[in-house]
Amino acid sequence: MKEPFNTLEFKDEELLLIDQRLLPAKFEIFVAKDYKDIEFSIRDMVVRGAPAIGATAAYGVYFALKEFSNNENEFYKACDFINSSRPTAINLKWAIDRMIKKYQENKDKENVLDLLKNEAIDIQNEDIITNKKIGDNGLSLIPQNATILTHCNAGALATAGWGTALGVIKTAFYNDKNIFVYADETRPRQQGARLTAWELTQAKIPSKLIADSVAATLIRDGKIDLVVLGADRIATNGDVCNKIGTFGLSVICKQYGVPFYSAAPVSTIDFNIESGSQIPIEERDKNEVRFVGETQVAPLEMDVYNPAFDVTPHQNVTAIITEKGVIYPPFKENIQKLKEQL
Amino acid sequence: MKEPFNTLEFKDEELLLIDQRLLPAKFEIFVAKDYKDIEFSIRDMVVRGAPAIGATAAYGVYFALKEFSNNENEFYKACDFINSSRPTAINLKWAIDRMIKKYQENKDKENVLDLLKNEAIDIQNEDIITNKKIGDNGLSLIPQNATILTHCNAGALATAGWGTALGVIKTAFYNDKNIFVYADETRPRQQGARLTAWELTQAKIPSKLIADSVAATLIRDGKIDLVVLGADRIATNGDVCNKIGTFGLSVICKQYGVPFYSAAPVSTIDFNIESGSQIPIEERDKNEVRFVGETQVAPLEMDVYNPAFDVTPHQNVTAIITEKGVIYPPFKENIQKLKEQL
Repeated sequence: MKEPFNTLEFKDEELLLIDQRLLPAKFEIFVAKDYKDIEFSIRDMVVRGAPAIGATAAYGVYFALKEFSNNENEFYKACDFINSSRPTAINLKWAIDRMIKKYQENKDKENVLDLLKNEAIDIQNEDIITNKKIGDNGLSLIPQNATILTHCNAGALATAGWGTALGVIKTAFYNDKNIFVYADETRPRQQGARLTAWELTQAKIPSKLIADSVAATLIRDGKIDLVVLGADRIATNGDVCNKIGTFGLSVICKQYGVPFYSAAPVSTIDFNIESGSQIPIEERDKNEVRFVGETQVAPLEMDVYNPAFDVTPHQNVTAIITEKGVIYPPFKENIQKLKEQL
Repeated sequence: MKEPFNTLEFKDEELLLIDQRLLPAKFEIFVAKDYKDIEFSIRDMVVRGAPAIGATAAYGVYFALKEFSNNENEFYKACDFINSSRPTAINLKWAIDRMIKKYQENKDKENVLDLLKNEAIDIQNEDIITNKKIGDNGLSLIPQNATILTHCNAGALATAGWGTALGVIKTAFYNDKNIFVYADETRPRQQGARLTAWELTQAKIPSKLIADSVAATLIRDGKIDLVVLGADRIATNGDVCNKIGTFGLSVICKQYGVPFYSAAPVSTIDFNIESGSQIPIEERDKNEVRFVGETQVAPLEMDVYNPAFDVTPHQNVTAIITEKGVIYPPFKENIQKLKEQL
């Protein structure tokens, strides 16, 4: 089972990205030719989703080494620049660190550039394999005839392919589970409306789109059997940082006894932090809320608070679905055990 | 203290309405000349907000009588047609019933048409007086230096003037309370972004606009001292039907001990129903979610669930602020007492 599209594709020394700013109205390819294009594509959200950002950044490090093969200082500066594109998702740093490690281990070799290119390709391909495993591991958590709520886009478009949360949903669907999906539109950037809805219709999974504030009533009325969504960073106590709106959903789920799952690769876990309070929350441009596309929806003089993420406390998380298995509470102990196995 | 604009203005036998579909990008007047224009203006949300709908509908009944002064049957059919424009807000029916009662009491009089015109003018003017009283009654609930969250638009634009929830906020502001307001944008029609933000900037009340899903984190983090919002219909047990998103907010407020107030005229209470489960919830056009203005935000083939309202159980409501005073729990008993005083 493969997606009919490639979120990112490395070809003839260029990285081809589906321009996710334009979906679903337009399908266009953004061509990144150097590390600056890569930084822009992440910052401006041509590509988004923690794992997809990681894989994209890996190619950025390769582009940077190609440009600065004779100037290590400039190479590291370029890596820092790519890393500065977005602050919250840890996979960005994880991928850059892995690429830099590869460079440092091989910098005296003649073929170091090829090795880095292959490392980026590996990161991309491994992500798809990882996501299929996440899907397989999540399968038993999806009951037959389940109605599932998801938030934002944790699909093929958020990863190198297949997806994390939406990967679990697809795996269930292709394993003949008769499921129905509600997709939150996910203001302000509407990744749910634009991207998840697009993936769901492409895959012909029965589904409906809702405004974010509809979810609470559906959960209260017993119309949602479980919530599954992605993660941009997970602390070692199990706190999950994800798209703004995730926390509110988790409170409603907790109140009404609905299972709440985060699906993410192990690379999303930040082993350096003990709780979600240590995760920097990105604040994005105020005009993301004042405008939708070209349409003005608020007075220009109205001030805006536009955080891109929030932190869901581990007490509200039923389980975290990873490629290494499903992590249940107590998260602190079980994430520590996972770390020791890596 | 008066608004620098009139939500509705009756002039030269026409009802002039601010076209709220176009704010804040454009300020245009919609001219309603007959009862069909009135029905359209309510259905298409040229005018919205339960009290504003009521006052507008009252003029519609007057227009209907003018058109069908010799055909009572057609007059009643026209009244039914106006009443069918939107199903949830009870003030619509309340205003039409009041107009019909006036007609029935005076139908044999030569000046019945003038009496109905004056009744509509009375309904409009009384609403402004009512809202000022709601503001006065709510004043003591707003602490000095309060940060207030509101949802949707329950302002001057939702009423004949001043507003209910936003009226309480304005009354506090003009009584030298140093307040700060967060306004939910309120998808899908964005009455918060388009209308509340417009009123707040017009009144120069310190404020910020947020995406709906930001509110939960602000409440959790202790950044909101109270929530005040309107109501479209209130059951006799205190259940509050209001704009979609209200219920979810109420759960978060309850969880974190933040007072949750609904401000509405007594005409919003439906004395014929015992609980919110009896309130019909309007489902609106799917394209309200697929498009924002001209901008497409979801695939056209994606199905949508688009309820306009939800019901907040009385257990989550701290108090209901009316022109007759603040109603506290137990709501069933206290709403009954209020009814006996009317």
